[in-house]
Amino acid sequence: MPETSDRKDDHIRIIEEEDVETSGTGFADVEFVHEALPEIHRDEIDTTTTLFGHELAVPIVIESMTGGHPNTTKINRALAEAAQEVGVAMGVGSQRAGIELDDEDLLESYTVVRDAAPDAFLYGNVGAAQLLEYDVDDVETAVEMIDADAMAIHLNFLQEAVQPEGDVDAQGCLEAIEHIASDLSVPIVVKETGNGISRETARRLADADVDAIDVAGQGGTTWSGIESYRAAAVGADRQEKVGQLFRAWGVPTAVSTIEAANEHDCVIASGGVRSGLDVAKAVALGARAGGLAKPFLRPAGQGTEAVVDFLETLALELRTAMFVTGSASVEDLREAEYVVLGRTQEYLTQRRQ
Amino acid sequence: MPETSDRKDDHIRIIEEEDVETSGTGFADVEFVHEALPEIHRDEIDTTTTLFGHELAVPIVIESMTGGHPNTTKINRALAEAAQEVGVAMGVGSQRAGIELDDEDLLESYTVVRDAAPDAFLYGNVGAAQLLEYDVDDVETAVEMIDADAMAIHLNFLQEAVQPEGDVDAQGCLEAIEHIASDLSVPIVVKETGNGISRETARRLADADVDAIDVAGQGGTTWSGIESYRAAAVGADRQEKVGQLFRAWGVPTAVSTIEAANEHDCVIASGGVRSGLDVAKAVALGARAGGLAKPFLRPAGQGTEAVVDFLETLALELRTAMFVTGSASVEDLREAEYVVLGRTQEYLTQRRQ
Amino acid sequence: MPETSDRKDDHIRIIEEEDVETSGTGFADVEFVHEALPEIHRDEIDTTTTLFGHELAVPIVIESMTGGHPNTTKINRALAEAAQEVGVAMGVGSQRAGIELDDEDLLESYTVVRDAAPDAFLYGNVGAAQLLEYDVDDVETAVEMIDADAMAIHLNFLQEAVQPEGDVDAQGCLEAIEHIASDLSVPIVVKETGNGISRETARRLADADVDAIDVAGQGGTTWSGIESYRAAAVGADRQEKVGQLFRAWGVPTAVSTIEAANEHDCVIASGGVRSGLDVAKAVALGARAGGLAKPFLRPAGQGTEAVVDFLETLALELRTAMFVTGSASVEDLREAEYVVLGRTQEYLTQRRQ
Amino acid sequence: MPETSDRKDDHIRIIEEEDVETSGTGFADVEFVHEALPEIHRDEIDTTTTLFGHELAVPIVIESMTGGHPNTTKINRALAEAAQEVGVAMGVGSQRAGIELDDEDLLESYTVVRDAAPDAFLYGNVGAAQLLEYDVDDVETAVEMIDADAMAIHLNFLQEAVQPEGDVDAQGCLEAIEHIASDLSVPIVVKETGNGISRETARRLADADVDAIDVAGQGGTTWSGIESYRAAAVGADRQEKVGQLFRAWGVPTAVSTIEAANEHDCVIASGGVRSGLDVAKAVALGARAGGLAKPFLRPAGQGTEAVVDFLETLALELRTAMFVTGSASVEDLREAEYVVLGRTQEYLTQRRQ
Ligand SMILES: Cc1cc2nc3c(=O)[nH]c(=O)nc-3n(C[C@H](O)[C@H](O)[C@H](O)COP(=O)(O)O)c2cc1C
Ligand SMILES: Cc1cc2nc3c(=O)[nH]c(=O)nc-3n(C[C@H](O)[C@H](O)[C@H](O)COP(=O)(O)O)c2cc1C
Ligand SMILES: Cc1cc2nc3c(=O)[nH]c(=O)nc-3n(C[C@H](O)[C@H](O)[C@H](O)COP(=O)(O)O)c2cc1C
Ligand SMILES: Cc1cc2nc3c(=O)[nH]c(=O)nc-3n(C[C@H](O)[C@H](O)[C@H](O)COP(=O)(O)O)c2cc1C
Repeated sequence: MPETSDRKDDHIRIIEEEDVETSGTGFADVEFVHEALPEIHRDEIDTTTTLFGHELAVPIVIESMTGGHPNTTKINRALAEAAQEVGVAMGVGSQRAGIELDDEDLLESYTVVRDAAPDAFLYGNVGAAQLLEYDVDDVETAVEMIDADAMAIHLNFLQEAVQPEGDVDAQGCLEAIEHIASDLSVPIVVKETGNGISRETARRLADADVDAIDVAGQGGTTWSGIESYRAAAVGADRQEKVGQLFRAWGVPTAVSTIEAANEHDCVIASGGVRSGLDVAKAVALGARAGGLAKPFLRPAGQGTEAVVDFLETLALELRTAMFVTGSASVEDLREAEYVVLGRTQEYLTQRRQ
Repeated sequence: MPETSDRKDDHIRIIEEEDVETSGTGFADVEFVHEALPEIHRDEIDTTTTLFGHELAVPIVIESMTGGHPNTTKINRALAEAAQEVGVAMGVGSQRAGIELDDEDLLESYTVVRDAAPDAFLYGNVGAAQLLEYDVDDVETAVEMIDADAMAIHLNFLQEAVQPEGDVDAQGCLEAIEHIASDLSVPIVVKETGNGISRETARRLADADVDAIDVAGQGGTTWSGIESYRAAAVGADRQEKVGQLFRAWGVPTAVSTIEAANEHDCVIASGGVRSGLDVAKAVALGARAGGLAKPFLRPAGQGTEAVVDFLETLALELRTAMFVTGSASVEDLREAEYVVLGRTQEYLTQRRQ
Repeated sequence: MPETSDRKDDHIRIIEEEDVETSGTGFADVEFVHEALPEIHRDEIDTTTTLFGHELAVPIVIESMTGGHPNTTKINRALAEAAQEVGVAMGVGSQRAGIELDDEDLLESYTVVRDAAPDAFLYGNVGAAQLLEYDVDDVETAVEMIDADAMAIHLNFLQEAVQPEGDVDAQGCLEAIEHIASDLSVPIVVKETGNGISRETARRLADADVDAIDVAGQGGTTWSGIESYRAAAVGADRQEKVGQLFRAWGVPTAVSTIEAANEHDCVIASGGVRSGLDVAKAVALGARAGGLAKPFLRPAGQGTEAVVDFLETLALELRTAMFVTGSASVEDLREAEYVVLGRTQEYLTQRRQ
Repeated sequence: MPETSDRKDDHIRIIEEEDVETSGTGFADVEFVHEALPEIHRDEIDTTTTLFGHELAVPIVIESMTGGHPNTTKINRALAEAAQEVGVAMGVGSQRAGIELDDEDLLESYTVVRDAAPDAFLYGNVGAAQLLEYDVDDVETAVEMIDADAMAIHLNFLQEAVQPEGDVDAQGCLEAIEHIASDLSVPIVVKETGNGISRETARRLADADVDAIDVAGQGGTTWSGIESYRAAAVGADRQEKVGQLFRAWGVPTAVSTIEAANEHDCVIASGGVRSGLDVAKAVALGARAGGLAKPFLRPAGQGTEAVVDFLETLALELRTAMFVTGSASVEDLREAEYVVLGRTQEYLTQRRQ
């Protein structure tokens, strides 16, 4: 993910101005079977879940996004205050800048989250590629920076491949991940950034003893698309084309959630999750929680209240889905009846062969 | 369903002015196999059926809609006169206002139906949630109000969940339904209001000894959508969004009809039934009759003749379908050849696994 | 089918001016597998076939259309002259007017075909419903009228059902067909008129010893649609609506061809056949020939040359399909490789269960 | 394929000005499964492959296109210089004109390729139909003309069938191919030109001991379409219609690749290949290399640099696909995980029955 201040700025501008979302998560192919007689009181439905022993009021994660530039402090503060208020988990963006540069204002863009959210489940973020350069202590620096409850290690090799200056050496990552998973003081979440985790990759991550997998599948924010716009801006035609070609590359989020959940018991579903109903579907497909990144960007710019309001809407949507599937708890929702239709069903059928 | 006078007014206005219908009943995926040699006389086809021993001239039901406000009397009179003339069944809207308020004019909006239709099969209506507050005598009051041949108990928890003021306590409903089913003087029909009845719910209702199930599945009038417009009108943003999100929630009517008919032998198919051909398909899928609500609203506003005319058109459409499938009777139609294609077939296949 | 002079006029006008064709024959779901190495000379391909012992130069039939009004003489002459020249079969429209009315000019509209086509395979036409009124001698009158090589008995009960004045008594038709099949001096073809013949109907016709079945399936000219326009013109609202509703009713031609060919070894595929490639597909699906009606109407109005030209185009299209599937003869084409995809495949799969 | 100078000119003009591409290769139905942890360095990925013992830097072929007219020399020079620079294979267009006519300038349009690309894998081109007229020595003339590493024998009977003056005698081709395959001094590639090679044809070619099959399937340049435009230009209405009707005829490239690769171990996939991602899919489906024709036309007109640039883009796209499927070599890519969805999957399923 974006790691220097300036690049981060480019990204945010492009995300705000251009079309950087694809479709095709597969959630539209997943339909719950209505329960006309739920036999529960909607307002007594228990939406809490636990993540590494920490309770979340709703199984929602504000995905890793920003930090690393003084003018992202405001965004992270709003997100963190809202996470604290509503009781959801939150990740910060890549901490590379925070680890490598020595700048008070820049650091504050990360540290602000723990100040604003003393009790929330917060997790840090480094790239898998950085793990090759860092030792465990460097990662501990990142943990301490925000007093993190966990660390996310992101995988974003397609994005790197589209960048003219990208880091395209993926060798040794798995071993580095295994190493960190065994030595770090907090649990680790390995996450993609919009292209999904396949069954095979999930199995290797499970074997490496990672504590959770965040699938970040195909269907939401497209980093390939974002880098394509950035390449266009600097006249890098070839990268622009490659970026466009791979715009919608990856395992659709719904498929990725099912595949990863078959290999690991702590899966976060993200990538194109856009409502509490999507979160509910993600849980029914096997996820422990649903994560959203881009949809938080606009409310975060408006302030804490807007983020809280958005989270409350997501929570009500999730609660409503639980109500009309007769699910009194997140545990129940996991057993809710659903069907998988269309192309998503075809994909799954093919993969089973 | 709408229960106070003012709310009823809101609903009718929205239904007349806004887009409150979805698609996706699945009937378009059901195709009859043409019989080129029907070997019957179209005008001798017997379209009669029986509902709890009462004969209907055509297997069509004017679904529960209105009553409870003096200015709905005209609508109910037109519907009832037409039901009497053509020989179809008719339900009134929720009788809560009639049971709870003491107002002559208001009461007349219900009682008018029996005056206008002395011989028609008429059924009353209360919400499942009200059953928790009422004892059997209260429901008998509703029966007597229109000298009802049966009572409908409606399930509308999604609608309630979208209303800011909705009744979202669904606990104990099944037991209350079981209780009423055993103690009431007339048969009961448990009906949804646009989101369908699944196989599992149908089984529980069958076990509770209800006399009939009206599926009111997904694909027609959307109460989630209606409440969303109402929420928008009062600035309740969050409910507006939730209502939109669940606009097309539910078991498609065709699927719901098949699933419920596998569990109960008296099923009424409704929710997006829009022609006599849909009624024919519903019967072939296992329903005893097809029900329509919204399509009757406009003719009812124009008067009895318009309703009769619409019913005659539906009857001719049904008769035509029976003719070209070689079905001399409703019984025969049940055995007519058809195929189920597309997404509806996928849904059924998934559900069978 | 249209039987009186005036009605025939109405029909022709509507067919020329309105949209009276549907889609959905299923031919688009049938794809031949290309043969890159055909090992034949295109111009030596043998496109001949036999129909009741009579050789056709190409397996194409000009379907039953017109006659019965003096101003259809020109059309029938053009069609017949072209049939003679190119060597295809041709049917005339319903001969009811010819049998029942005594009018030289009117009769000429039928008799012209044999004058113009002394050697062509020509067949007459009566409605199945008329068989109930006629004895064998009446039908022999029709045979003699054009010195017919065969008689077509048409089934058009949906059309009749949409007409306000339609003949909707289908009782006894099968017996009457069986009777005629055994007693008439020439072979009989039982044909639909746009709604297809199902496997079950085909079996009954085979058991009744009819000599051929012309499926006239769904996907081409829609008589329900035509009658709907006619009803609209006379303000018969209900019939107009019913006609629209059943516009695309019936067994798709591709499906009907397969089903009928499984039951009878002499099947003509028609209904939406629009090119020589469709004819080729029909043959591969099991038909002995492909028939077209409406596409001949415009060239027939222009004269013999235009019809011949159209027939030559169809013949070249068919020949081209035979060439690139490596089919040296119609017999070979029957064994050509093809796949059936999409909704047509779904329909067939459902029917096999 | 086009063989005289003037015809070649017509073709090029039409290809530049009209819509001569179809869709439907099936590549859009083939989706790779993302590998989030590729464990390789993108820039160390080995994209080389061998074709008849000759190494290609990337598994890409510039398909047979032109030569035979003095003003095509420039195009062939640009293509050849780029092939030499990047290390891909290249074919010339039909050499009929070069073999049959004795014209220095014309000959140069072929010979230029070996001058410009002393080390590239270059292959000649004759039509299968010409083999019947030529003896082995004539074909050796074509080999010598460009010092060819291999000869392509093209099959284009649909195109010929659409041309008013086309050569539609396909008899004896297979035997002639078998003959040449055994006697020629260089390996032969039998190629279609846009309609694909079926499993059955591939088997016959394998039995005839051809050295490679280039499928040139349906979904790219349509010669039927091109000839239709040419027919229109000279007022040949019937050919124009036939050409349009067969515009999208043939085995989709993805299907054809799979089917041919099951029968022969050296398959080139072409026909609608439009990116390095398509090349990657082709390889995963079993091809040894992917070929493109039309997309090279415009850059070739601009000069060598433009062709090199386009090739480099294709190479980067391929490399990116290899990277995010974790394929360190073309051999690995062959084992990459993918799914086949939609109509392409249906086609394959049907063909397996
Ligand atoms: C503005 C923005 C910045 C992001 N930065 C990071 C990052 O620094 N590290 C990371 O692991 N993921 C990053 N992501 C990816 C998200 O965490 C998430 O995996 C992905 O966007 C898919 O979710 P979405 O479709 O809801 O946006 C970022 C996403 C956005 C929109
Ligand atoms: C104007 C209107 C009022 C309704 N009121 C009630 C009601 O009071 N009680 C009830 O059980 N259903 C009520 N319904 C739901 C219908 O009975 C029916 O289940 C549903 O609308 C689906 O049918 P449709 O798509 O044909 O409208 C109402 C529907 C409409 C359109
Ligand atoms: C103008 C016209 C008149 C027709 N008249 C008759 C008729 O008299 N008898 C009959 O059996 N079919 C009649 N048909 C039906 C055709 O024979 C044929 O079955 C049907 O139109 C489907 O073919 P198409 O889609 O190629 O038009 C007529 C069709 C047309 C277009
Ligand atoms: C301008 C042009 C000329 C061609 N000429 C020949 C030819 O002479 N011989 C041949 O075998 N194929 C010829 N082809 C066909 C191509 O080699 C190729 O098989 C086909 O175009 C499909 O690839 P595409 O979709 O990438 O264009 C030609 C194609 C084009 C576009």
